[in-house]
Amino acid sequence: MANQFYSKRNLQFLLYEVFDTESLTQYNYYQDHARETFDMVLDSAEQISEKLLKPLLTEMDRKEPQLVDGKIKIHEGMFPILKKFGEDGWINAGFNYDEGGQQIPSTVLSSAAFIFQAANYSSSVFPFLTSGAANLIRSFGSQELKDTFTPKMYTGDWQGTMALTEPDAGSSLSDITTTAEPTENQGVYKIKGQKIYISAGDHDGCDNVIHLMLAKIKGGPSGAKGISLFVVPQKRTQNSELISNDVITAGVYHKMGYKGAPIAHLMVGSNDNTFGYLVGEPHKGLSYMFQMMNEARIGVGMNATAIGTAAYYASLEYAKERPQGRVISDKDITKPQVQIIRHADVKRMLLFQKAVVEGSLALLTQCSMYADLASVTEGEEREHYHLLLDLLTPIAKSYPSEMCCLTTSAAVQILGGAGYTTDFPVEQFYREARIHPIHEGTTGIHGLDLLGRKIIIKNGKSLQLLVAEMLKTIEKANSIDRLKPFAQKLQVYLGKADTVTKHLLSLASKDLEIFLSDATLYLELFGIMTISWQWLVQAIKAEEALLAGATGNDFDFYQGKIFTLRYFYEYELVKIDSLMKRLLSEDNVTVEMEAGWF
Amino acid sequence: MANQFYSKRNLQFLLYEVFDTESLTQYNYYQDHARETFDMVLDSAEQISEKLLKPLLTEMDRKEPQLVDGKIKIHEGMFPILKKFGEDGWINAGFNYDEGGQQIPSTVLSSAAFIFQAANYSSSVFPFLTSGAANLIRSFGSQELKDTFTPKMYTGDWQGTMALTEPDAGSSLSDITTTAEPTENQGVYKIKGQKIYISAGDHDGCDNVIHLMLAKIKGGPSGAKGISLFVVPQKRTQNSELISNDVITAGVYHKMGYKGAPIAHLMVGSNDNTFGYLVGEPHKGLSYMFQMMNEARIGVGMNATAIGTAAYYASLEYAKERPQGRVISDKDITKPQVQIIRHADVKRMLLFQKAVVEGSLALLTQCSMYADLASVTEGEEREHYHLLLDLLTPIAKSYPSEMCCLTTSAAVQILGGAGYTTDFPVEQFYREARIHPIHEGTTGIHGLDLLGRKIIIKNGKSLQLLVAEMLKTIEKANSIDRLKPFAQKLQVYLGKADTVTKHLLSLASKDLEIFLSDATLYLELFGIMTISWQWLVQAIKAEEALLAGATGNDFDFYQGKIFTLRYFYEYELVKIDSLMKRLLSEDNVTVEMEAGWF
Repeated sequence: MANQFYSKRNLQFLLYEVFDTESLTQYNYYQDHARETFDMVLDSAEQISEKLLKPLLTEMDRKEPQLVDGKIKIHEGMFPILKKFGEDGWINAGFNYDEGGQQIPSTVLSSAAFIFQAANYSSSVFPFLTSGAANLIRSFGSQELKDTFTPKMYTGDWQGTMALTEPDAGSSLSDITTTAEPTENQGVYKIKGQKIYISAGDHDGCDNVIHLMLAKIKGGPSGAKGISLFVVPQKRTQNSELISNDVITAGVYHKMGYKGAPIAHLMVGSNDNTFGYLVGEPHKGLSYMFQMMNEARIGVGMNATAIGTAAYYASLEYAKERPQGRVISDKDITKPQVQIIRHADVKRMLLFQKAVVEGSLALLTQCSMYADLASVTEGEEREHYHLLLDLLTPIAKSYPSEMCCLTTSAAVQILGGAGYTTDFPVEQFYREARIHPIHEGTTGIHGLDLLGRKIIIKNGKSLQLLVAEMLKTIEKANSIDRLKPFAQKLQVYLGKADTVTKHLLSLASKDLEIFLSDATLYLELFGIMTISWQWLVQAIKAEEALLAGATGNDFDFYQGKIFTLRYFYEYELVKIDSLMKRLLSEDNVTVEMEAGWF
Repeated sequence: MANQFYSKRNLQFLLYEVFDTESLTQYNYYQDHARETFDMVLDSAEQISEKLLKPLLTEMDRKEPQLVDGKIKIHEGMFPILKKFGEDGWINAGFNYDEGGQQIPSTVLSSAAFIFQAANYSSSVFPFLTSGAANLIRSFGSQELKDTFTPKMYTGDWQGTMALTEPDAGSSLSDITTTAEPTENQGVYKIKGQKIYISAGDHDGCDNVIHLMLAKIKGGPSGAKGISLFVVPQKRTQNSELISNDVITAGVYHKMGYKGAPIAHLMVGSNDNTFGYLVGEPHKGLSYMFQMMNEARIGVGMNATAIGTAAYYASLEYAKERPQGRVISDKDITKPQVQIIRHADVKRMLLFQKAVVEGSLALLTQCSMYADLASVTEGEEREHYHLLLDLLTPIAKSYPSEMCCLTTSAAVQILGGAGYTTDFPVEQFYREARIHPIHEGTTGIHGLDLLGRKIIIKNGKSLQLLVAEMLKTIEKANSIDRLKPFAQKLQVYLGKADTVTKHLLSLASKDLEIFLSDATLYLELFGIMTISWQWLVQAIKAEEALLAGATGNDFDFYQGKIFTLRYFYEYELVKIDSLMKRLLSEDNVTVEMEAGWF
């Protein structure tokens, strides 16, 4: 079993050298904090991860949750972990002091989450689901809803979920059929329907499950405009006792990976006895839910990055230890075999992983900083951060999700036959990585979101802001000798990307179907551009440190950053040339292909 | 569970329309055959697959082989399958009449194997391993060895294996340490060592296991030149009884996929009581083994293609049935949802799968034809076929292996959340596909084989022959209106590929390490070129049929071929532009990167 599962050094580099997270403490909301408190949060996450989460990684994969007598039983090793998450205040750590929170910036919290996820992805999802659900209640719910539900959620006694998907409405949320019928009590509705794929939708490690559930109030508008948000507890309080709220666990899904987390199929109101409590106003459910979904999407990008990181270190450790073959320039058979990290092809697979996971982590940290800054600034500044975050969300979700399927595959490949066996953790990482291009919106959906919405809104202002950020980075890198060629290359590719964007937008008025037919490829192109930018951002700090005379481990670390920048520009950035060729082509083969011809 | 798992129509198209397999019957060796006998073989494979293999697909994945009291127990559903393979003569079907064989061309047999593999990959490997092992004995062994071992192998009573890999010698075969010590009996040696990852290395569905094992005769040359090939039975005959030959099953590997096949860890001669029987001459073991390995490599390409094909049809079926969302040009929420095959992005993922798996199957059929022709022709003609087959082997192994990891991923993506659950077979295909870039030589090894050996030998004659074949296809396509643009495009890319090859070869004399550092990328480029060629080959026949007035299902089939050609040239062929940019670059980042900087 691999020992290292993430790099503390890299996390600190991003937080304190690249993105200056400490600068947040100049704002009132974060004024009580300093690097010391941030470090305490991260150290604490590391300790819990090493002591509780990581030792369960394999076992939770082997011993899946089971549905027994209508209740999902999870691995019992999760019980102390759930307790710990509640006791130590992880669930509401980012919320206000007056809610019992600690007002920790999301940049720091998501870094801590990254550590948990890299240690044991399945176990990390429980508290963050609760946190997201509670955040919806505190943001949009009445004081009564807050008082009723959030305290027990913060302590971890009650689990939170987001209950959106239905058998006939996965990607197409507007087609949900779960209904809500008003009762005589204001804000209280009878709920009836089915929900599937509900993460942590039921388990025996909590006393109650609080579903933030989408349903349609009878008689309301059709489609997405008729969707409302409800708190639907698994058990409701009656005469200060918890009684069943008629939310029945019909099944638990068995999955390829991510097996430690229980994913439930729920029957709601089968006995006409489920009560749901309206959150906010009727018919605004989807807009409320999007707050949680956008956070969750950034979270999914982080999950993928964390799994990719753990796989990277597992394969790096193996490559440094495993002797096999000889270097190409000295095949003398009488000499001992060399460690496989000496082979260029193995280094290529390691650089690929490092480039993707550290590039993704940089982007995700950048996004978290935008989120924190948007929460403490005002006016135009705030709007800028919001627009940047909105634009980058589909990228931050999809690039790591898609790419970490490939990086975990590279990790398996480095281990060879050993990697395919369950004796090493990389095959588990490969299986776990595969969920991310699916949940919280498939990659296809995010392509449509980016090209069909995010690029266009506010007359393209978001994109202008992002390009301005990139140009700032290019300008800075242009003044540093070693980085100048990379700055120039990025500028050239920015021009190419612009050509593609303009071409696609010119199609929008002619044929919507054709305009959006390759949105997934556009998303890929945009992702590569964005990560190329993030590598230049990192390289500026690395090169500055090298020029200032970094030595020893620091030298190695910064040198690694410069080489990974080189890798990314040599092997990944150039992929845009092929994507561009396709995206500028006029052959609409995917639109014109007919079902009968497959 | 998906019903269709391969396309009979496509197989017939390749065998009888594209590659004219019937033409083999003009040669003496195959003169008793005709399309009718070929079809009987394929029909028989389909029947066995549907009746026996496919129903066990899921179950064999869930109920893995276990080591019980030193014996590996496989799924008992395999017993009648093993019996059937033996009884029906599948194991020696390609061998001579006087060996009890049926002299069936390998083009037909590998097509039949493809059907078995698509139905249930794990179950398909048993007979083909035995066939390959027996083929080594009959090709290089003494009459005594043949008489002793092959009859029971042909009936399926005895399992055959290839026992190469050791704990400290995976990709580096020259480093094996299993020893062979001569005994007083000529050709009989005492064997001692360990072998790992031995497919079907032990199981309770046979009476004996015959290992074709590599070992080093004590005192022989070091490295690859000292490797000899032995028949090492699990049990040897003594006084006409089978007694233990001291080959102990130390373990069974648990794997991510391909779970139905037992992969053994063997201890050989631990009690100094293992006898091995030399095959052919001493120290020539590796060259003998390569006969089997080259067949096995083509076989692995076929395995990957078959799994990719099964996943393609599973996702195609789902895409045709599953309603979700609405077409982009008509989002009217009051209308019912449309089948997801209407979405361009889903069609793109289906076309990707179809393009890869049908392109790969075409290439593999082409390779089998070269093998058959090489076996019945003589002189220069024979050499040509041999050279083409040798050159294409690393491509035919690696392109499907690498790409079907991605196509099965696309199949999972089309099913969305459902695809990640064990309720559908696509997640199993995704796991099973991942073994192929590893076994029978990793992709990295095949890259080195292609660029460091196959391109260079005989002064590049193999490559010249292949280019000549491609130019013939281009010339033909140039005379067909609809195909002319594709012919021209392929010609342009042939020029690009040539530029890359010349550039790389110019490095060979300067720095071997740099020359071969991106051999894997060169392999990828070469694979795309080859499959592009195979799509043009197919499209010529399809367009001829369309011009001749094909209607109904035939029209749909041929139209699908033309559209898939378009897809491949639009989305896949263009990837060469990015690969070329990298392969012509002078930044040797993967060579220069140091272990300490990761």
